[in-house]
Amino acid sequence: MLPYWLDLMGTGVGAIGGALAAGRRSLDLVGVIIIAMIASVGGGTVRDLLLDRNPVYWMRSSDYMLVILICSLSTVLYLRYRPMPKYVLEIADAIALAIYAILGARIAESFGNTPVIMTVIGVITGIFGGMIRDVLVNEVPFILNQDFYASAAILGIVAYWGTKQLGLHAEYAAYIGVITIITLRLAAMYFKWQVPVLHIKH
Amino acid sequence: MLPYWLDLMGTGVGAIGGALAAGRRSLDLVGVIIIAMIASVGGGTVRDLLLDRNPVYWMRSSDYMLVILICSLSTVLYLRYRPMPKYVLEIADAIALAIYAILGARIAESFGNTPVIMTVIGVITGIFGGMIRDVLVNEVPFILNQDFYASAAILGIVAYWGTKQLGLHAEYAAYIGVITIITLRLAAMYFKWQVPVLHIKH
Amino acid sequence: MLPYWLDLMGTGVGAIGGALAAGRRSLDLVGVIIIAMIASVGGGTVRDLLLDRNPVYWMRSSDYMLVILICSLSTVLYLRYRPMPKYVLEIADAIALAIYAILGARIAESFGNTPVIMTVIGVITGIFGGMIRDVLVNEVPFILNQDFYASAAILGIVAYWGTKQLGLHAEYAAYIGVITIITLRLAAMYFKWQVPVLHIKH
Repeated sequence: MLPYWLDLMGTGVGAIGGALAAGRRSLDLVGVIIIAMIASVGGGTVRDLLLDRNPVYWMRSSDYMLVILICSLSTVLYLRYRPMPKYVLEIADAIALAIYAILGARIAESFGNTPVIMTVIGVITGIFGGMIRDVLVNEVPFILNQDFYASAAILGIVAYWGTKQLGLHAEYAAYIGVITIITLRLAAMYFKWQVPVLHIKH
Repeated sequence: MLPYWLDLMGTGVGAIGGALAAGRRSLDLVGVIIIAMIASVGGGTVRDLLLDRNPVYWMRSSDYMLVILICSLSTVLYLRYRPMPKYVLEIADAIALAIYAILGARIAESFGNTPVIMTVIGVITGIFGGMIRDVLVNEVPFILNQDFYASAAILGIVAYWGTKQLGLHAEYAAYIGVITIITLRLAAMYFKWQVPVLHIKH
Repeated sequence: MLPYWLDLMGTGVGAIGGALAAGRRSLDLVGVIIIAMIASVGGGTVRDLLLDRNPVYWMRSSDYMLVILICSLSTVLYLRYRPMPKYVLEIADAIALAIYAILGARIAESFGNTPVIMTVIGVITGIFGGMIRDVLVNEVPFILNQDFYASAAILGIVAYWGTKQLGLHAEYAAYIGVITIITLRLAAMYFKWQVPVLHIKH
């Protein structure tokens, strides 16, 4: 689907994001690691359960859990001595979203799903870890009112699928999808793109 | 189990309820659609995972996702121009609860479960979508302190099961269950029935 | 794995904890039972879904649901007349954590998982019910900033696994694991042990 190191990289970056979110709430060390773990593997776990893919991916090898442990502990240690500039997290977050969304879409596709379902599964893989993380620290998931987050994932999956339909090798199309999502997220942050907010009449 | 159009109707009505709940929190358009999707398919997804029913129902056809997209976008558009009277939502909510609870109970029954488990699965199917929706927008799920919501689902499932035990054709018993739940919910709203609240001693 | 009565005891104690948590929020009677149910079977349900263990354990017999019903109703009745001293809950909570964590670890082990994954599944089984319970009543899960909760589960699983590696019969090693967790939890409460809290630089 995607190279194993890219998968592990998404895992590590997701764990760092989880540790940072947990840090904002003054949780204890074990709490931080649990949040980092859920943030990192949450989306892929829901994907595997939905597709009945056994065993759930992070149970196939202890690598995932070890990467999460190392990344979340390193984040905690780093933060004890100096603050993390916010844009580092945002770039890392964009990378994790891109890897997870395209990987999720490709796995759903390999199970014979339609493009619509493939896109839904890709988005779920990309965003559910962060959603559960935010719910656990008692916040409205930021992806729900974040400028252009799930939208970037959808467009990246469309880019993957479109270029593949046009005859591009699936492997290259996947990289195009990943790069599309990262580029859109960074552009959205830089230019402050917003999806219109729904203001309802009461 | 239940006619396909009734299933899709539950899906659409659930999506409208989700969009309205999301609207109260000023989420962006994509956030609204994601909440609507989770509210609509959440309960049935948990049911299918618990029963190991593969694939999860909304992955069998793109119809479900398209219905959700159309219903949530229509709701957003409608709300831009005029408010939705609250009773419309409550009636829609009662219909969705009724369809989901009876459908869930029948599916659990068809997997050979006992009446107790069948009832639990029916209630889960009926209420979990709304519960997850409320948790995501950072509220205590309304079904947990709502007058007579889960109770109506339980009584409707009992009505379905009872009339079937008495020899009624399962199809008709299902309609009786659906009508029982809708009637109980509307009566509960009209007469303001309350389940006693637990006030503990501290 | 563990005797059936111990399993049911964990179920009942988990339900009592759920009913007490729900009581703090003035939910209605049905809401309390739903929270008690989720608190009690939540962790084991996630475990069974992750391991693709079918059917989910509480669907194999109506016993679990009946135990939950009796325990949560008894708790509600009791609390109508007199308060529950807090340490009763904390002791009960320690017992449920111990039973669930060791049972979860043993089940994961029997599916051929590595010690790392076995530990993760054991901790999930022990803590997820309480986490979902707290999220539903709109609180940051207490296990995330509780002194020494998940840590006690991890150490108990290590004790189980270690003594088994040293040649002890698995059955006895399981009891050692359960007793380790209960002892650690009670000691942590008595001596107010704390895992260091992460204070990040902003």
